[in-house]
Amino acid sequence: MQKGRKTMRLSAQEIYDRLVNDDHILELEGQIKFYLGDVDIIVKQKDVVGNIMQEWLQGWLDKRGIEYAPSENTQMPPDFFLNPDDRTRGLLEVKAFNRNGTPGFDIADFRMYAAEIQEKPYMLDVDYLIFGYDMSDDGVVTIKDVWLKKVWQITRRMENYPINLQVKDGVIHKIRPGVWYSERATDYAIFDSLEDFIAAIEETTFKEPKLRDSVASTWLAVFQKNYKARYGAELNVPRWNDIKDKYDLVTDKKKEKAIEYYEKCKSQKQKVDERVLKFQQRIIEATTDKQKANAEEGLTRALATMETAIKKLNEAKENCRAVGVDIEERPQ
Amino acid sequence: MQKGRKTMRLSAQEIYDRLVNDDHILELEGQIKFYLGDVDIIVKQKDVVGNIMQEWLQGWLDKRGIEYAPSENTQMPPDFFLNPDDRTRGLLEVKAFNRNGTPGFDIADFRMYAAEIQEKPYMLDVDYLIFGYDMSDDGVVTIKDVWLKKVWQITRRMENYPINLQVKDGVIHKIRPGVWYSERATDYAIFDSLEDFIAAIEETTFKEPKLRDSVASTWLAVFQKNYKARYGAELNVPRWNDIKDKYDLVTDKKKEKAIEYYEKCKSQKQKVDERVLKFQQRIIEATTDKQKANAEEGLTRALATMETAIKKLNEAKENCRAVGVDIEERPQ
Repeated sequence: MQKGRKTMRLSAQEIYDRLVNDDHILELEGQIKFYLGDVDIIVKQKDVVGNIMQEWLQGWLDKRGIEYAPSENTQMPPDFFLNPDDRTRGLLEVKAFNRNGTPGFDIADFRMYAAEIQEKPYMLDVDYLIFGYDMSDDGVVTIKDVWLKKVWQITRRMENYPINLQVKDGVIHKIRPGVWYSERATDYAIFDSLEDFIAAIEETTFKEPKLRDSVASTWLAVFQKNYKARYGAELNVPRWNDIKDKYDLVTDKKKEKAIEYYEKCKSQKQKVDERVLKFQQRIIEATTDKQKANAEEGLTRALATMETAIKKLNEAKENCRAVGVDIEERPQ
Repeated sequence: MQKGRKTMRLSAQEIYDRLVNDDHILELEGQIKFYLGDVDIIVKQKDVVGNIMQEWLQGWLDKRGIEYAPSENTQMPPDFFLNPDDRTRGLLEVKAFNRNGTPGFDIADFRMYAAEIQEKPYMLDVDYLIFGYDMSDDGVVTIKDVWLKKVWQITRRMENYPINLQVKDGVIHKIRPGVWYSERATDYAIFDSLEDFIAAIEETTFKEPKLRDSVASTWLAVFQKNYKARYGAELNVPRWNDIKDKYDLVTDKKKEKAIEYYEKCKSQKQKVDERVLKFQQRIIEATTDKQKANAEEGLTRALATMETAIKKLNEAKENCRAVGVDIEERPQ
């Protein structure tokens, strides 16, 4: 597998820097070609690129004389051991996805992954080298983005599970990434920290039927024991229930909108109140029948508007209650 | 789309002959390569080949100066019009599949296809140029087989439908091919004729929920009208019920086995009958007590065997009845 001279040992960050700064990978134009007989064609299948960037990187490592050992296990990170002498450090996983869509690759099977990081906490330190590629209609391949990330920097919760999962017929399968590069996430935020990611994994073991009745209740304790053995101290893992809301942008956004609408309705109601008061005042102060009649007409119109304003305000309050916002109740 | 000199107009058969006999396609070694920067790798994804043979053939047609017009409609055959002046003749569809598996390509969506051949009977004359490829572990692509077939020569019935279909949740989707090149089919035979294929299509329209209540009852009549308009006479389409059994190799095989087993049991029973008779005869003819005792002992053993033989024969008869074989009942 390992061809050519091996003169250098680089870290994942050094590999990233070299790809981006020395080899200008973001400016290259590539292509896939099929040769048979004296006829060759450009292959224009976008999904192929996602599956071959790992092999390309291996070719690149070979060509640049960068040391590595390939992993035999394709089911679990990493793809490469950058320090073949110590397979617990310098772990590199390569991912690629069509930058015009959302990341479609898998992180790992949830159950296998939960067992793996529990036993080998250093697996949490795997560097993910991620390529966001594009293929033009003519088959020209370009790399639009390269990222170097830890697992918790590319994952997030989902609605019904603490981690984003591929769930089929109620059965949990693969952990899937979130959209970590979006300027404005609209549903669930990417994790803030490794600690929160671990809290999510632990909580998910209770949601996985096969794990709930076996390892779930002891998963965190065993993890902490192994983590401490490796890093000298336990990880300060919060309880999922204490942190889950901060990742829920859907509900946050709904709350914001509910409050905004309530404030708008309250302000409209106040304006109508003022108009009603104004016409009541005018009726009192009227010196002619004409003035009185005009003021009474205005009051009638204002009272009709008041009815609508009260109805809207009550709806807005109800909506606030529904999304869990506490509106201070003052007598109107 | 059409580059290069266009000097020749070839038929599908001429294209097939040229690929196989002049260009020796069965002896070529191809590969897929990915180029990015100064690093290139061989792509080892077997499924890619299935999707690019059509483009390769287009490159080949270009290079050989063979005339064609590509089709715009990717949902329906053909891929190429070999006679761009008459798009009802010289229709060529290209398919490819991994020769180490079974043909995995789709023929077409059933409902669309039924409508298409009804309106355009010449679509039944489309030539299918089919490549059976292989990719080695090193990514070397070879073409193991090339076939030129009509649609009815690559399709067959299935258990519950007159034509082999992809059925999801009871809904009919694509028509799928059978294994037309197998020396010994084990389940359902490939159609014998276009007529039988049409009988199967018609019968299937009655099994498709959306077609059953709409076009099913008139499908064949409209087809025949259009077929006659094109070819001068109607097609002699049999009724599916009259032909369906001849394509059912599963049942045939079961029947053969049932008869074979019945004959075996019958022959065993006859042998036991003969032994019983023999010992009965010996008892009658015995002249000493010793002879009589021996004969009686033999009769006891033979009668015990008889019991088993009768039981087996009855089971064999029952089995024949179950698979629909008429066993002539003679008094034993």
